[in-house]
Amino acid sequence: MAAEHAISPTREEDYPEWYQQALKAADLAENSPVRGCMVIKPWGLGIWENIQKTLDQKIKATGHENVYFPLFIPLSFLEKEASHVEGFAKECAVVTHHRLEQKDGRLVPTAELEEPLIVRPTSETIIGDSFSKWIKSYRDLPLLINQWANVVRWELRTRLFLRTSEFLWQEGHTAHATEEDARQEVEVAAEMYRQLLEEALAVPVIIGEKSEGERFPGAVTTVSLEAMMQDRKALQAGTSHYLGQNFARAQNIQFLNANGEHEYAHTTSWGVSTRLVGAMIMAHGDDDGIRVPPRVAPKHIVILPVIPKAEAQSEVFAYADRLAADLRKAAYQGSPIIVHVDKRELRGGEKNWQWIKKGIPLRIEVGPRDVKNDAAVVYRRDQSVREKMFLSREQLLSNAALLLDSIQQQYFKQAKAYRDEHTQYGIANYEEFRSFFTPSNQEKPEIHGGFVVAKWCGDERVSRPLLEALKVTIRCLPREQSGTKGKCVLTGRDAEIDAIFAKAY
Amino acid sequence: MAAEHAISPTREEDYPEWYQQALKAADLAENSPVRGCMVIKPWGLGIWENIQKTLDQKIKATGHENVYFPLFIPLSFLEKEASHVEGFAKECAVVTHHRLEQKDGRLVPTAELEEPLIVRPTSETIIGDSFSKWIKSYRDLPLLINQWANVVRWELRTRLFLRTSEFLWQEGHTAHATEEDARQEVEVAAEMYRQLLEEALAVPVIIGEKSEGERFPGAVTTVSLEAMMQDRKALQAGTSHYLGQNFARAQNIQFLNANGEHEYAHTTSWGVSTRLVGAMIMAHGDDDGIRVPPRVAPKHIVILPVIPKAEAQSEVFAYADRLAADLRKAAYQGSPIIVHVDKRELRGGEKNWQWIKKGIPLRIEVGPRDVKNDAAVVYRRDQSVREKMFLSREQLLSNAALLLDSIQQQYFKQAKAYRDEHTQYGIANYEEFRSFFTPSNQEKPEIHGGFVVAKWCGDERVSRPLLEALKVTIRCLPREQSGTKGKCVLTGRDAEIDAIFAKAY
Repeated sequence: MAAEHAISPTREEDYPEWYQQALKAADLAENSPVRGCMVIKPWGLGIWENIQKTLDQKIKATGHENVYFPLFIPLSFLEKEASHVEGFAKECAVVTHHRLEQKDGRLVPTAELEEPLIVRPTSETIIGDSFSKWIKSYRDLPLLINQWANVVRWELRTRLFLRTSEFLWQEGHTAHATEEDARQEVEVAAEMYRQLLEEALAVPVIIGEKSEGERFPGAVTTVSLEAMMQDRKALQAGTSHYLGQNFARAQNIQFLNANGEHEYAHTTSWGVSTRLVGAMIMAHGDDDGIRVPPRVAPKHIVILPVIPKAEAQSEVFAYADRLAADLRKAAYQGSPIIVHVDKRELRGGEKNWQWIKKGIPLRIEVGPRDVKNDAAVVYRRDQSVREKMFLSREQLLSNAALLLDSIQQQYFKQAKAYRDEHTQYGIANYEEFRSFFTPSNQEKPEIHGGFVVAKWCGDERVSRPLLEALKVTIRCLPREQSGTKGKCVLTGRDAEIDAIFAKAY
Repeated sequence: MAAEHAISPTREEDYPEWYQQALKAADLAENSPVRGCMVIKPWGLGIWENIQKTLDQKIKATGHENVYFPLFIPLSFLEKEASHVEGFAKECAVVTHHRLEQKDGRLVPTAELEEPLIVRPTSETIIGDSFSKWIKSYRDLPLLINQWANVVRWELRTRLFLRTSEFLWQEGHTAHATEEDARQEVEVAAEMYRQLLEEALAVPVIIGEKSEGERFPGAVTTVSLEAMMQDRKALQAGTSHYLGQNFARAQNIQFLNANGEHEYAHTTSWGVSTRLVGAMIMAHGDDDGIRVPPRVAPKHIVILPVIPKAEAQSEVFAYADRLAADLRKAAYQGSPIIVHVDKRELRGGEKNWQWIKKGIPLRIEVGPRDVKNDAAVVYRRDQSVREKMFLSREQLLSNAALLLDSIQQQYFKQAKAYRDEHTQYGIANYEEFRSFFTPSNQEKPEIHGGFVVAKWCGDERVSRPLLEALKVTIRCLPREQSGTKGKCVLTGRDAEIDAIFAKAY
């Protein structure tokens, strides 16, 4: 490959297009013939499966049990919680018929349903219906469940992984006897997500409450995890909602308390989705492709046999296979290291670049000289493409897991450094605020300052037009509040709340 | 519990009703407000997750990669393969709108789609579309993929797990350069299913080809795995289809062969579903509830502390916890034994019966005397409810995995003995055949002979009415054919084929 970088355009040249190209070059997913839906390919699904496995363990370890609820929700269920309908009515796929028939040579829907069914955009309403039947007394609480499912939200502008009409996710739903308990649960979920994001996906996050205008439809409090992408935009990586008694009232989720009185339960819900794969691409990718953190990588190591002459093939292949077998005996994060030997008949450069673009953590080249020296040439994906280490077989075997650990940490460090570098604390007024969010270069409208941490007066009504003019949103009111007093960066009024402002996905 | 058996009615009294009651008593799943769809509860989903994990490992170990395709299929895709449409048109959920709006105080579907979308009943057509794009040359073959997904087939008469409008399954889809390769793949899938059924679910199966009338819509050959339930009916537990070039022609899945010529690929598809949970219930359940084979059990052992006096509680709980911790250090099938200590405040009898009905493999009671003697009382679910073993702590710890193994084998042995006992080889003509399948007791129409293995002439047209009159079907033409000659059990004509006849789910 003659080009200096494998992905064209580079991030700097055109970030949105770089995202599409990097994703394509890694063969993660592609658009399907169904509007807004994607086909998730093996490398992309493998990453999602690892995210799933990591989070599922945490969900179970914190006392939640997995269940599965129907894909369809009766229209009348959706109507019960007014703000919930309002939030989802515009993007619902509706099933109206349950049969097809040939008519005039064309296949047409027939057998109309008495009540249309919605393809779930989220499952609060149908799960709440079961909660109302399952919960009788305080002894049945807390009720802690989770489901892994596909959901559909009809989107007009879609982007692979970031915003698709169908996506895969997990949704936790819980009911509690007290507000305190339910609010504690919201924190438990947020902490699981923080660990998933920071420790497995190597993406640093800021946790905080959403301001009123940004809450989940029907929620009292929404806690979100916000991450910075490499175009300095924020991506909401996960949310955890305290629903108060809103859904319990709408769906009659009552219990008998210890005094024999009826009370409405306090419910929560929380979810993360395949969007996290998009977050990973945008937080770590470079101009040679995506970079997959070892803890979520479908494969950790690829061994690339180098065969200068045909007669060397059998001995190099045998050496590569032996090396792979030995590497698989080493443990990484409690499981065997996943090693692939790529014996395809392809030019070495092309093969190598395919794996670089896929972001595999370690590439190992072995040729006749390595066989002779009992050695290997090792490339780390977190380092520049040409930087290599000459390791003896023994060194490689005893250090493979450490190398993976080091790459994992490196990605987190780099992402955190990037975020910190583009987070501005000193902005005093709306004029400075506007200029921070205004692209310096008109040809690259997507490049702007990044995150602003500043005081906010809390007045949604007055703030909204000032923010909308710049296409900026309040991402969250971070958990760690300074407690100081100052002036609102938007209105100049007295203000105590620290808020994070950013453009967002 | 005073009753002699925990489940009423017993299997003998009313098998279909026993199934519903056993399922309910185990808290596996329940009907949902959405017609024909079920809510799968933690114990039921836990079993499915273990089935999934077991099979997923086999699927990956045989070179298949997981992917995810859209839930929706454009109507025009379904039309491409004529017999495929015919097979599924009558049970398709159709999405026609993508928005809801308030109109006269009611929420109504709006924004009609240009082309209606089908909720996938199976994914041959949408996956075939991608295959036609992905496959260029023989070097791209075989293409071996699988997806775990929900599918919808609109059923009018549903039964939890056995026949539901929405169910969870896995569908493998592969493309090959030659018929031989594709037919080999069909066998690979069938063998994975056999291992899953016999080794994990402890359900013995007969593998064979379906006769023409029983094939998958669009298939050239359908291989199925047939199991006998305890009402002597057959349940089709899994299928693996050789689709020939039918779908490849319909969807233009072509490749360039080594001679540079275009050829159509040979494709296969294969699937098993949540129906397997129903198979497990009906193959192993007894009149005290379901019995879960240890290899798919969400929990292996429950420890039930027996507290005769309140002051004994803390020492018994501590002993139970310690015992649980030690048991968890033992490995069963390469993973830790899963142990639950049930400390709920419930009468001992009720608690015990709950776990019997859930079919947990081992129950362990510990009381003050056991604490003193460093011992425990152990109950195996494959033995009668009152049969117990007094084991020292040490005996228990060193034998727990062996006990689980023994229970697993016992279930398989019992199910196989039942099937063999109710399989008839000696039936000579249609008169005997009719009497075998005619209930001896008119009050129990579901009780009949079981499986018949007999000669069949292969004439579908003539056989059909003779079979339909008795509600009997040809389950399969078993893999192991005797090669002998004889007379067709239906028509009396000369016949060489061995066939298995049974009533079926």
